[in-house]
Amino acid sequence: MKTSSSSLAGWEPWMRRALRLAALAEGQTSPNPLVGAVVLDSNGILVGEGFHLKAGLPHAEVGALRQAGSDALGGTLVVTLEPCCHQGRTPPCTEAVIAAGITRVVVALKDPDPRVSGEGLKRLSEAGIEIITGVLEIEASYQNRFFIHRVLNGRPWGTLKWAMSMDGRIALPNGFSKWISCDESRGWAHRLRANCDAVIVGGGTVRADDPLLTSRGQREPEPLRVVFSRTLDLPKKARLWDLSVAPTLIVHGPEVVRPKKLVDHVEHLEVPSSEPRELMKALALRNCNRVLWECGPTLAAAALKQGCVQELSVVIAPKLLGGSSARTPIGELGYRSMDQAMLLDLDSIELLSSDVLLSLLIK
Amino acid sequence: MKTSSSSLAGWEPWMRRALRLAALAEGQTSPNPLVGAVVLDSNGILVGEGFHLKAGLPHAEVGALRQAGSDALGGTLVVTLEPCCHQGRTPPCTEAVIAAGITRVVVALKDPDPRVSGEGLKRLSEAGIEIITGVLEIEASYQNRFFIHRVLNGRPWGTLKWAMSMDGRIALPNGFSKWISCDESRGWAHRLRANCDAVIVGGGTVRADDPLLTSRGQREPEPLRVVFSRTLDLPKKARLWDLSVAPTLIVHGPEVVRPKKLVDHVEHLEVPSSEPRELMKALALRNCNRVLWECGPTLAAAALKQGCVQELSVVIAPKLLGGSSARTPIGELGYRSMDQAMLLDLDSIELLSSDVLLSLLIK
Repeated sequence: MKTSSSSLAGWEPWMRRALRLAALAEGQTSPNPLVGAVVLDSNGILVGEGFHLKAGLPHAEVGALRQAGSDALGGTLVVTLEPCCHQGRTPPCTEAVIAAGITRVVVALKDPDPRVSGEGLKRLSEAGIEIITGVLEIEASYQNRFFIHRVLNGRPWGTLKWAMSMDGRIALPNGFSKWISCDESRGWAHRLRANCDAVIVGGGTVRADDPLLTSRGQREPEPLRVVFSRTLDLPKKARLWDLSVAPTLIVHGPEVVRPKKLVDHVEHLEVPSSEPRELMKALALRNCNRVLWECGPTLAAAALKQGCVQELSVVIAPKLLGGSSARTPIGELGYRSMDQAMLLDLDSIELLSSDVLLSLLIK
Repeated sequence: MKTSSSSLAGWEPWMRRALRLAALAEGQTSPNPLVGAVVLDSNGILVGEGFHLKAGLPHAEVGALRQAGSDALGGTLVVTLEPCCHQGRTPPCTEAVIAAGITRVVVALKDPDPRVSGEGLKRLSEAGIEIITGVLEIEASYQNRFFIHRVLNGRPWGTLKWAMSMDGRIALPNGFSKWISCDESRGWAHRLRANCDAVIVGGGTVRADDPLLTSRGQREPEPLRVVFSRTLDLPKKARLWDLSVAPTLIVHGPEVVRPKKLVDHVEHLEVPSSEPRELMKALALRNCNRVLWECGPTLAAAALKQGCVQELSVVIAPKLLGGSSARTPIGELGYRSMDQAMLLDLDSIELLSSDVLLSLLIK
């Protein structure tokens, strides 16, 4: 295979442009990855740009090649992910690249799926095309971390989000929790949902809060609203049952005795057990690259213990609630010594008006 | 009174220098304020600098005038606080200023004590000296906020400090709490103690943690270690009872039946009631401008409710502890609706290695 990694740095400006193109579809491509591409003619002049907008629509390479037209002949394709070589909902990109007369392909990242990784590049190389890989590979991996996690693990990337007071409370002792965080934080939470494929709560949250769980129109369609219930003890009326607003899925284990579905018009899905990891597998099969856990302490603890959370988004409001009962974000994790504590890596700190938003990765 | 506020801005560079001089004694001047001073000769050339180092030692003005010597004649004194006009442990500064032949005094802040505020300036003015006030007044007030609070309220400024996990826990469910925060945070906590006149814990903290509560030699003498106990149910042996390391004071209310003092060599002080505000009054009388609350949730809640806390320092460690029992920083505050919550103003965010330090003011 004719592969070169010489002068990777020279390609970085174009790859950065391709990454920025890819980012335009953030949150919209699942189960597909984000991909951006640019085409340069034989003189190195930009003649085409493209990005993957949505599953089922043309891939980034195809869009960029179309724009380039005959200028692609003898030119270079710069693309954030290895072009596919299999027939999916759209034809293989490798064939389009070859047909366009491209003579060099610059790639950030090989296909993360180990079963097909390198196949696309091999096909291109066999067709006599020069291949350069690894340009801004770290940036490209970060951009597609949700997709990569799902491909490698068969489970979507999990983001766990909560809002708490400065003294670590998610509610007053009497259970009241509206609102701990400020307007701007709640707007941020809607935008976060718009970047997730599903939003998960437990039955307790439905009973206590009757949440809406939408992005308030910032995503079309809205993310799938998932109620993960061990008991199916759900209220007859809830805002989640109004499917005209957004889709809803009720997921439960096999142990549930289900004499009648209280909300018949909402889809029910039985998974092999009432464990978060089973829910994750089911959601991966339903095209979710990233899910948002907006659940209470008990389900959050279970999801953390089963590796279903990769990332935390913690909103801290500058107020004190107090209370001796435990209205705290995470339930029992079973730790008996400090060295068992689950470690996190601080990723970023932002201010949301008066609130502080901490983003962390599970180590 | 010949007072001028014209061209305040022109004096700001000199006042900034005086403020920086004052800051050199941070944490060491109680019950006195921080004060810095510079003397310019009649041509505006710097001829003297001084700051107040410690109660009983010369005031800032005196040091600066001494350095200036005869160059002070016809010159300007720039000082962060109104010169005193009363005989204390040192003679009144106003007389030294007049005697040195200063013709202009530039002041940031009048004496915050309303009973004497303006008296020093009046004395200077009557002696024919031009007075300019209000230069960097906000900065000067901030620098002396602990002193000002004590003078105006008869109680020291209270800083409440705790370290918690990202899920708002100050201990594991079994009570283990060593260590939630990182080495660097614990070093920061020692430096914080060095800037406080007293460190307060309750009896529970003595029983559970046997803390040392010193600045590890960063303050000389070490801050007063205060045990505020409702019951005098204290262990016979504790690191706090070793007075060779630092002074310790046991404070209790009148309701305590005291058949015997378990730790006779440690000073006991009875206050009119076991309320935090009574402790604060007693500590103000013992020369404390600033105290550090390092207590458990119950005493912290009581101190907050009685206005004995002006500021929070919250260290958040990037780890999760979990647990359904309430090992959280603040006990019951009695709130029943969200609009009762105690509001805070975020003052600063710092990173202490892997931990996040949030500083907040009580609104």
